Amino acid sequence: MKLYSYFRSTAAYRVRIALALKGIDVEQIAIHLVKEGGQQLKPPYLVKNPQGLVPALELDDGTVLTQSLAIIDYLEAIAPEPRLVPQDPVRAAQIRAVALTIACDIHPLNNLRVLNYLKGPLGRPQDEVDQWYRHWILKGGLEAVEALIEGGHFCFGDRPSLADICLIPQVFNARRYKIDISHLKKIEAVDRYCKELPAFKAAHPAQQPDAE
Amino acid sequence: MKLYSYFRSTAAYRVRIALALKGIDVEQIAIHLVKEGGQQLKPPYLVKNPQGLVPALELDDGTVLTQSLAIIDYLEAIAPEPRLVPQDPVRAAQIRAVALTIACDIHPLNNLRVLNYLKGPLGRPQDEVDQWYRHWILKGGLEAVEALIEGGHFCFGDRPSLADICLIPQVFNARRYKIDISHLKKIEAVDRYCKELPAFKAAHPAQQPDAE
Repeated sequence: MKLYSYFRSTAAYRVRIALALKGIDVEQIAIHLVKEGGQQLKPPYLVKNPQGLVPALELDDGTVLTQSLAIIDYLEAIAPEPRLVPQDPVRAAQIRAVALTIACDIHPLNNLRVLNYLKGPLGRPQDEVDQWYRHWILKGGLEAVEALIEGGHFCFGDRPSLADICLIPQVFNARRYKIDISHLKKIEAVDRYCKELPAFKAAHPAQQPDAE
Repeated sequence: MKLYSYFRSTAAYRVRIALALKGIDVEQIAIHLVKEGGQQLKPPYLVKNPQGLVPALELDDGTVLTQSLAIIDYLEAIAPEPRLVPQDPVRAAQIRAVALTIACDIHPLNNLRVLNYLKGPLGRPQDEVDQWYRHWILKGGLEAVEALIEGGHFCFGDRPSLADICLIPQVFNARRYKIDISHLKKIEAVDRYCKELPAFKAAHPAQQPDAE
């Protein structure tokens, strides 16, 4: 399998953690989101993923799967252990809700294409773009996640789940943009613990072949 | 079970379709997103869902589940038939990718809270807000969905799936905002067929107790 990835994409980072936790090796192909006006927006990649976003997972028969959470559910189906979403329906829903809070209600609002739209077509100055970023990462975002998770070493229970897989990359991004999350004590504790685990370390942006 | 809903919320509309397809009755409780400055942003609802968004599903033991796609996966687990996500891993991933394209990359960018932020803190005039809406619903949004689905009566195969459950509410919203989607032939055909099915009709915003 081939993973189309960009080292700094938090959605690709999620898939890399899931692959590492399950011990699945893939060939990584870098799609640079900035160079050449964005390689994701042009053939040959755009033909594989008509959304023009990373990541995408190409199977050995050429089928291309898109959307990080759909890819992770696919990995869960073909390699069920270790489980990333438990079988208990309520616990599974709580874990998925945290993952979706990040994947739907934080990440897309702060994605590169949106920040570019604010700066370009809307002509917003950098301080308003920074304020936009800070607003959505916290409000109804990580502040809600803090309320939704149990906390401890992981968001829920005693092993990494889909919730941690989404949280750690989002915290990485928050720190990159110098957002103060010191009031989010459970999130900080989960981040501190998870980021030292081998699978999370291997998936870190700085460890990728296309890291700059 | 109680569903906290708002008639016009496309995320709540998804859950209503899933409930109707599975024949599950719930008590609907209306949370008005506009009146009183937004009932979703204040107790008692905000205590149930710290994200301050609808929908939420309250189980009989008081547990509250949030995020429409997590709620639908919960319903799938407790009432597996009819299946909304098939068991084949590749087909499941393709269906989930369409659902997530809508739920992550269209809906959150065009949600009421974001449009209010563009008008309020960013002071954008209505025509720029309208252009923003049109841009994200089409670009990397419904235009990508058109490329990802098979088409026919449903997005995939011969029965309604999670993809149709997300698509029909999003098309409803596109029409409400007078977005021209006549170039998206597969989407128009799926919408034409699905919206006449009893479960989709029962879930329509105009049929809800809180419809205005």
